[in-house]
Amino acid sequence: MRTLDFIRAKRDGEELSAAAIQEFVRNLVAGRVPDYQASAFLMAVYFQGMSEAETHALTEAMTTIGTDLDLKPASGTKIDKHSTGGVGDKTSLVIAPIVASAGILVPMISGRGLGHSGGTVDKLASIPGYRTDLSAKEFLAQLKAIGIVLAGQSADVAPADMKLYALRDATATVDCLPLIVSSILSKKIAAGLDGLVLDVKVGGGAFMKTLPRARALAEALVRTGTAMGSRVVALLTDMESPLGLAVGNALEVSEAVSVLKGQGPDDLREVCFELAAWMLVLGRVAKSLEIARARVEKQVQSGAAVSKLRQVIAHQGGNPGIVDEPGKLPRARLQRELRAKSAGTVQEVQAYPIGIAAVVLGAGRAAVEDKIDPGAGLLLRKKPGDKVEKNESLCVLYSDREASFAEAEALAMEAFVIGKAAPKKKKRILQTIEASHLKASKSGPKTKQKR
Amino acid sequence: MRTLDFIRAKRDGEELSAAAIQEFVRNLVAGRVPDYQASAFLMAVYFQGMSEAETHALTEAMTTIGTDLDLKPASGTKIDKHSTGGVGDKTSLVIAPIVASAGILVPMISGRGLGHSGGTVDKLASIPGYRTDLSAKEFLAQLKAIGIVLAGQSADVAPADMKLYALRDATATVDCLPLIVSSILSKKIAAGLDGLVLDVKVGGGAFMKTLPRARALAEALVRTGTAMGSRVVALLTDMESPLGLAVGNALEVSEAVSVLKGQGPDDLREVCFELAAWMLVLGRVAKSLEIARARVEKQVQSGAAVSKLRQVIAHQGGNPGIVDEPGKLPRARLQRELRAKSAGTVQEVQAYPIGIAAVVLGAGRAAVEDKIDPGAGLLLRKKPGDKVEKNESLCVLYSDREASFAEAEALAMEAFVIGKAAPKKKKRILQTIEASHLKASKSGPKTKQKR
Repeated sequence: MRTLDFIRAKRDGEELSAAAIQEFVRNLVAGRVPDYQASAFLMAVYFQGMSEAETHALTEAMTTIGTDLDLKPASGTKIDKHSTGGVGDKTSLVIAPIVASAGILVPMISGRGLGHSGGTVDKLASIPGYRTDLSAKEFLAQLKAIGIVLAGQSADVAPADMKLYALRDATATVDCLPLIVSSILSKKIAAGLDGLVLDVKVGGGAFMKTLPRARALAEALVRTGTAMGSRVVALLTDMESPLGLAVGNALEVSEAVSVLKGQGPDDLREVCFELAAWMLVLGRVAKSLEIARARVEKQVQSGAAVSKLRQVIAHQGGNPGIVDEPGKLPRARLQRELRAKSAGTVQEVQAYPIGIAAVVLGAGRAAVEDKIDPGAGLLLRKKPGDKVEKNESLCVLYSDREASFAEAEALAMEAFVIGKAAPKKKKRILQTIEASHLKASKSGPKTKQKR
Repeated sequence: MRTLDFIRAKRDGEELSAAAIQEFVRNLVAGRVPDYQASAFLMAVYFQGMSEAETHALTEAMTTIGTDLDLKPASGTKIDKHSTGGVGDKTSLVIAPIVASAGILVPMISGRGLGHSGGTVDKLASIPGYRTDLSAKEFLAQLKAIGIVLAGQSADVAPADMKLYALRDATATVDCLPLIVSSILSKKIAAGLDGLVLDVKVGGGAFMKTLPRARALAEALVRTGTAMGSRVVALLTDMESPLGLAVGNALEVSEAVSVLKGQGPDDLREVCFELAAWMLVLGRVAKSLEIARARVEKQVQSGAAVSKLRQVIAHQGGNPGIVDEPGKLPRARLQRELRAKSAGTVQEVQAYPIGIAAVVLGAGRAAVEDKIDPGAGLLLRKKPGDKVEKNESLCVLYSDREASFAEAEALAMEAFVIGKAAPKKKKRILQTIEASHLKASKSGPKTKQKR
């Protein structure tokens, strides 16, 4: 099938065969599809959607074609986690060592942050010496050696996604369910992965702002992941306010370490432990979620989890000393307290303006090519439900750039909504979506998924 | 407005402002819009359509931005004609000299043929020595000097269309009404054109296969052209069978000359004279269509029209001797008669297979880069309604390539449908669409035009 006919078929709403999709992705990865044809195809998919069968075929092709990463040679059960991204979301740094310390292989590939949403790779890169850019060969060798890898995406893992994502970003075709599903899963379900826990964030600081849209994405991810032969579960978790207290790379590493030491903020611990417990369930180390939760506690209390973190840092060239001496992490030169203008109770701490404030302070990227300041960010002192006095500190801002404080303070001030009433306590974990709970889609494999 | 936001707005069905469209076209022509963004925009337009106001703004921008051709310095009324393309459509070669000989300036820019459909530029190029690639400066100088130019499209006439058309061709976005309208008009309505007669072909050998689709295109062209300040009329003409008897470049030039000498096939003469008469009406040389028709006859009978053809050929470097000695035109080396397998009456001569047969013989292009054989083609001996004996000649095929005859003969044989009954006489001119006849579009300027 010529690429032009492939585009035309999608444009006209025809269902594409798995063979045609395979051929398109093969041509794409081989550089035989010009960008202008790929982007016209993406826009046609935006309007016409894709059936479950097409989404599966696209994900399968993007996962397998051109990739050098085959996990099969590492013997053991391999479970990964993926989050759709939020503010203060450092769960990977906590969960991966917990789960690996319980004997499951954790081959984790993470992304870089963009806009208000942080990226795990940037947090890892704030650890002095830490290498995130492993080759497929190094990746596999480390997984065999210590059972855990925390690395960044490289071109040889999911080259089709690398190409398509860059185009989607520039052509207003990011927000399209089958393209989101195939992009996420193709980076995660490398050959040989047994299970995947998905953390689909919901709310103002998340990609999906509403529960129905987040649920649609979670269900599509679980369906397609399951169709690809993985054990998949998705948790919908709240992202109206930042997770934990720390926002910014080194600040978040430090907070993650404190959770692994049995401390840290309750909301962060709750989300991390639930995600980790599900990984143990999918990895069949625990027979029930109850047993898994107890096992997670044990891995933390025994110190096994934090030891695993030291091990992975050392193995990837970083300084494991940061675990016991957080002062060895980079810290911004300047600090500023943000003080409450009136007394009351914190109603909301909106994740989105906090995320943007972190970017302004130097902790994130406004554009792909921006450099990150690993020590910049915010540390919240108040969370929703906390009482606050006039002039009491709401949060601390960290930056190397004096000029950035005015804008960041205004954003952070906007994020803190202070009122009289005691706000309703919000749950962090909103819903769990398991493959066994999903009904077969009513209209069969022809159901088109759009946005 | 960033290009990304521009794409997103169209994707979401918002109406784009004239200013935003201008900026996009300016950036496109300046090379600041990457192809992958332009093609995503085109696909979004395919799905969301464009309002009349958007179509007008796009056409206006594509007509004026980056073009070097300004006709205003040539004083006089300027009228052009455009055909949507068909098989055996050599009307331009007849009409332009007739109209120019009546004192109207005819600045005609024509396209190359592709697929079954021939192009005027290729027909002109079959005249020995004839130059079709005039610069904007040469174009204007000739228009001033002799009142007629018959040239090909160059990059400096409509650079935005040049770019967009190539992308549309490769991304399955050709078949989209506002894009067709802006493409046609931007090439035709150069600055200073007073009027345009459109020949919208309908039927198996045309781009628009059905009357309703052809009428929709004709109406959109008349509406947008009128909004741009031109006097515009569209004729819907039949393209179920080839126009005239000759198909192929030099063969068609020869047939066009015979019409200018007062001979030639009736159907071709009828269409040419009607189009020419409308040009005289728009050019206000004649007060009514009746008077204009008589004037057209006079220009032919007096020899003024054929003299004008000699003049334009000579001025563009060609050998005007071909007008009086058609033997000076190139002629293919080999000829083959196609003979009827049974007696009867010709029911149909299908334009599409005849057009493809001409390509096979070397008279057209299957792909943009193909070379043309100016002497190749077909000469019909029978037309719908003609009686035919067994073994009588249906047409003559001309080619330099012996190997091409088998396929071309099969195609031509398929085109001739022979039966018993006398077929209903078909009209060539189906409908005339004038601006004054068009109602204001019911839903106002927000009406979206798709396909």
